[in-house]
Amino acid sequence: MVRSVDWTFISGGITAPAGFQAAGIAVGLKASGKPDLSLLLAPESAVCAGTFTTSVVRAACVDLCLQRLADAGGHARAVLTNSGQANACTGDRGLIDSLRATQAVADRLGIAPEQVLICSTGVIGVPLAMATLLEGVDPLVTALSDEGGAAAASAILTTDLVDKQIALEADLGSRQVRIGGMAKGSGMIHPDMATMLGYLTCDAGVPAEAWQAMVRRAVERSFNAITVDGDTSTNDTFLAFAAGEPLPADQFELLEHGVTLVAQHLARAIARDGEGATCLIEVLVEGAASEPDALQIARTVCGSSLVKTAVHGRDPNWGRIVAAAGRSGVAFDAQVVSLWIGDHQLMQNGQPLGFDRAAASTYLQERANGCYLRDDAVLIRLVVGSGPGKGRSWGCDLSDQYVRINADYTT
Amino acid sequence: MVRSVDWTFISGGITAPAGFQAAGIAVGLKASGKPDLSLLLAPESAVCAGTFTTSVVRAACVDLCLQRLADAGGHARAVLTNSGQANACTGDRGLIDSLRATQAVADRLGIAPEQVLICSTGVIGVPLAMATLLEGVDPLVTALSDEGGAAAASAILTTDLVDKQIALEADLGSRQVRIGGMAKGSGMIHPDMATMLGYLTCDAGVPAEAWQAMVRRAVERSFNAITVDGDTSTNDTFLAFAAGEPLPADQFELLEHGVTLVAQHLARAIARDGEGATCLIEVLVEGAASEPDALQIARTVCGSSLVKTAVHGRDPNWGRIVAAAGRSGVAFDAQVVSLWIGDHQLMQNGQPLGFDRAAASTYLQERANGCYLRDDAVLIRLVVGSGPGKGRSWGCDLSDQYVRINADYTT
Repeated sequence: MVRSVDWTFISGGITAPAGFQAAGIAVGLKASGKPDLSLLLAPESAVCAGTFTTSVVRAACVDLCLQRLADAGGHARAVLTNSGQANACTGDRGLIDSLRATQAVADRLGIAPEQVLICSTGVIGVPLAMATLLEGVDPLVTALSDEGGAAAASAILTTDLVDKQIALEADLGSRQVRIGGMAKGSGMIHPDMATMLGYLTCDAGVPAEAWQAMVRRAVERSFNAITVDGDTSTNDTFLAFAAGEPLPADQFELLEHGVTLVAQHLARAIARDGEGATCLIEVLVEGAASEPDALQIARTVCGSSLVKTAVHGRDPNWGRIVAAAGRSGVAFDAQVVSLWIGDHQLMQNGQPLGFDRAAASTYLQERANGCYLRDDAVLIRLVVGSGPGKGRSWGCDLSDQYVRINADYTT
Repeated sequence: MVRSVDWTFISGGITAPAGFQAAGIAVGLKASGKPDLSLLLAPESAVCAGTFTTSVVRAACVDLCLQRLADAGGHARAVLTNSGQANACTGDRGLIDSLRATQAVADRLGIAPEQVLICSTGVIGVPLAMATLLEGVDPLVTALSDEGGAAAASAILTTDLVDKQIALEADLGSRQVRIGGMAKGSGMIHPDMATMLGYLTCDAGVPAEAWQAMVRRAVERSFNAITVDGDTSTNDTFLAFAAGEPLPADQFELLEHGVTLVAQHLARAIARDGEGATCLIEVLVEGAASEPDALQIARTVCGSSLVKTAVHGRDPNWGRIVAAAGRSGVAFDAQVVSLWIGDHQLMQNGQPLGFDRAAASTYLQERANGCYLRDDAVLIRLVVGSGPGKGRSWGCDLSDQYVRINADYTT
């Protein structure tokens, strides 16, 4: 029997859980003058689980986070995040600058530098503007507040059009538990073990090892299931903090469900805000031999440039969906494939069906983001056999605007 | 010692080699009225090596080619190619239509149907217009000629802007050998064991097994090293015929070099004519542990949407190149990476170098295809270690035009 509990949406983002403080301010790292420095402060008892990019070309801040979390056995107190420069491919000074920045924050907070993590996002190959960043540390710490979630969520953005945050609340056993999260990401999104930048807070106490396992599984079904453009970042980082009264182990399954909901909400928000995107695409694959097989097919379809451009053209060109599934590297029998776009079935047991092309095109048109308030996604459902494997992936359409954004980004 | 011989460019395409005939005519399979049906006829003694898409979703014509080549031990006489409909995902009638079409050609030529192969290219999921195709068989066979290479090369195109053909000639030992080739392909190009459609003819006799091995290696270094949009087709097929006076085995190495040159010329031509492309990109990776490792890194960089849009924006945004290499799945030490765009070195042993950004941008600008006459490519060179592995991959930039072409393709 699957146990479940209702998680309710609440406001407050990463500072909704008790004991967490955050801040976000503009210090001049971005030419635009927008907020570009943020800080998250967790309670003293916090455990922290991190998942990071699997790229062999990693930013210095990623190496530093990995090292510090390993040394401290999954404990950390604070995360500094700058946007504007990724501090990746900056040579030896990359690590030196990350160390200096975290030292300054630790000094001001009066904690050990080993308890401070750092994330950077922005242009690759450009060093951090250290003087500017260091000047910002004092006002940043001064701005820390238990209502600072929204400011922090805004200061971590780069090409994102909207901020991405969420908080949930539920009663687990005899007590109330809150989970908050924020993320950024819009381009270079094809996370492998983590997303660009994601943060989660929880006010229930969980042992470090159990927390790490829970977070890993949630990431697999959220951030690792999205793609915007197939490019994995050098800086992908997801950090999840838990701190509070210890939760009984028999509540962990319910808590993991909430953690997964928060991670999926943030992951979907990143895909929906994909550079140049006009809609969110959700691909559901059923009947595969295993969940990883289903996920691999779903993510391949989500990442296909031809599927993405067809959706952008509001064109139910379903052959491209089946072609993408076919090249995913997962073996299946093409003669049993069935396919739906929304409620429109286009293929049954490998045979194309007659369908109302105009109605299917209208379905795609209606799913375009007029605004970011609706949660409508273009739903593509593919049944590839009768196995138990089911997986879901999220992406977005590919528009002329994506090309313009990325052809003009550093010049 | 590496033996080599000078291969000279000659005219005639696939009908340049002695004994081969071809034709290409318009029969009405394309709404545009452009040529859409072609035929290649090989001498009676011909061996034929084929490599095909590895997608599990394959067109019926691919299955038929595979079956007939296997049954005949690598022998075939003719290939019929239609453009306009891919005959993929057309259910049971896909195979029935392929059988009927090859039967009609065999009857008209007076040969066994098992000796006739068929390739189809165009929209997925739309059945062949059989009545139109069958009406075209008689005039097509009538048009066969030993000067029909150009007509055939034109009739296999779909969204291609230019035809792709080549012929080479060299003296091997005491005799002259000619190799001809043609190909089509512009979108859904990320071949895996073969390209969209490619054809090669050779007037030297080679045993079927040796020919197959030679062709496989050449394909690995040509068609399997290109990408336009990361999408592998359901119809990818490369067919290579050899027929003529038997060539002594001590000349095979020289012949393989010629076969590789022809295959690389056609593969580069496909990448250069990528949908919406304004330039050809060549990525050379050196110092990897093995040739497959080097190829994998090169192909990942070539396929990165962010690298492709940066080149389109004439923007030497080199961080994206290193980031793409880092996520290729190949292990290397980021601290030894060196990088060049053209003659401009941007990174040395993992450290970014100061460079003339305006000059590098001008280099990218100058490589844009004003016309298709020049063979200038944007050259990206990446040294990832001191290993012996070297690999080269070809692709193209990603433009607004690519999105427009593919958003509007079937509507």
